[in-house]
Amino acid sequence: MAAWARAVRGLLLDVSGVLYDSGGDGGVPIAGSVEAVRRIKASGLKLQFCTNETQATREGFVKKLQGMGFDISVAEVTAPAPAACRILKERSLRPHLLVHNDLVPEFAEIDKTNPNCVVIGDAAENFTYANLNEAFRVLIGMEKPVLISLGKGRYYKETDGLKLDVGAYMKALEYACDAQAEVVGKPAKMFFESALAEMGVPPQQAIMIGDDIVNDVGGAQQCGMRALQVRTGKYRPCDENHPHVKPDAYVNNLAEAVDIILQQL
Amino acid sequence: MAAWARAVRGLLLDVSGVLYDSGGDGGVPIAGSVEAVRRIKASGLKLQFCTNETQATREGFVKKLQGMGFDISVAEVTAPAPAACRILKERSLRPHLLVHNDLVPEFAEIDKTNPNCVVIGDAAENFTYANLNEAFRVLIGMEKPVLISLGKGRYYKETDGLKLDVGAYMKALEYACDAQAEVVGKPAKMFFESALAEMGVPPQQAIMIGDDIVNDVGGAQQCGMRALQVRTGKYRPCDENHPHVKPDAYVNNLAEAVDIILQQL
Repeated sequence: MAAWARAVRGLLLDVSGVLYDSGGDGGVPIAGSVEAVRRIKASGLKLQFCTNETQATREGFVKKLQGMGFDISVAEVTAPAPAACRILKERSLRPHLLVHNDLVPEFAEIDKTNPNCVVIGDAAENFTYANLNEAFRVLIGMEKPVLISLGKGRYYKETDGLKLDVGAYMKALEYACDAQAEVVGKPAKMFFESALAEMGVPPQQAIMIGDDIVNDVGGAQQCGMRALQVRTGKYRPCDENHPHVKPDAYVNNLAEAVDIILQQL
Repeated sequence: MAAWARAVRGLLLDVSGVLYDSGGDGGVPIAGSVEAVRRIKASGLKLQFCTNETQATREGFVKKLQGMGFDISVAEVTAPAPAACRILKERSLRPHLLVHNDLVPEFAEIDKTNPNCVVIGDAAENFTYANLNEAFRVLIGMEKPVLISLGKGRYYKETDGLKLDVGAYMKALEYACDAQAEVVGKPAKMFFESALAEMGVPPQQAIMIGDDIVNDVGGAQQCGMRALQVRTGKYRPCDENHPHVKPDAYVNNLAEAVDIILQQL
């Protein structure tokens, strides 16, 4: 019945807003999601978690999710910071970091002396006036500013309300320096491709499930994957009138998506 | 000799970076500028100060400049906040303010209950993570977000270094809300026109003198005025290779510009 659910071998899951709602207290699982992850794993489908989360190391992030009851390991998580570290090493870039304190350990192996680029993540409380001015001064001092952004999300939802995401601050620095950031994370094609490579599944046999119409759904479709939008997390009804992006289907939540997909196996 | 200096009846002067360098301590006059303003006034040329300054009321701003020795009065200053107040009244808009504490009195007469727009200025230390999230939530809660920005400068120079200006934060909110701000201040044509109207001089007989290649020089030229860039304030040598804007002349500072202009009278 659901044509979009046929011939699937692997699922890519966004995490925040799909598995759980984040908040100051750590977060709350979305009803049915813990069980849905277990059912995917029991089904034999390949599974990778594909997140733009940059408020914690992958280790810290996975530990938090395990604490909520999710069956998840570090190797199953594709996240921007490790991808950025590969780029920094390849290009001999030494970053000035504007990131969350808890993400800093991901960059432990990277030379940060005498910076020749800026890496910006979802720094949250570290997005102070002083820190933004400092990152700006590093950039404007370069002949050609190099700004690497860990995602370009507009905003996300926490239990105490909507928060500006890294993309907004990326745009501020881009404008001030008249430069264009390089985005590592969703919706960058290379990022989805590395997640698919981890699963060993081609895009035509994979489905992305996310709450972000542009970064999850649009990005995955650009890679040749099918993509569902869940009506949880940052989903808003007006997303269904998005001028450019149309998901292969809407589902109320992850549990419903898994119900439909498993019926087709 | 200097063709650009002929047939002038009025001068528009940018203030920060032309008259003085601002800083935490209030600011320092640029050498020769106090005397240059006196000479303009003695010459019989019309004079208006045209600033995007939004860190203080015009009263406070003028008092600071008088303290540095400048001959200046409130009526001679065209600034964004009073222009924004006229727009708010005309359109029955009730602002949520993201501005510098010292600018708030400019909006004393304006109804700010139950906001239906956001007004952003150079809020400086008020550009906190919490305040930006709050302004964002007001905007995203509207069917069609209304964002009024007092200028759209990229950055400016204080005695302790370069600082991000209101334009960077405007871009952050624009991106997060998928909206376009209405800019009140330079380089908006209407703003220059109101400064010219104060002087009673047509654009063809006026020269703008500023340190900002885009907002001062480009904006004034779009209005049909001649425009000089001073090599003080935020001026950087690479401005002389700007892809779109070419000043009618460069001058080392305001004093040199006034020397040349007065010779042609």
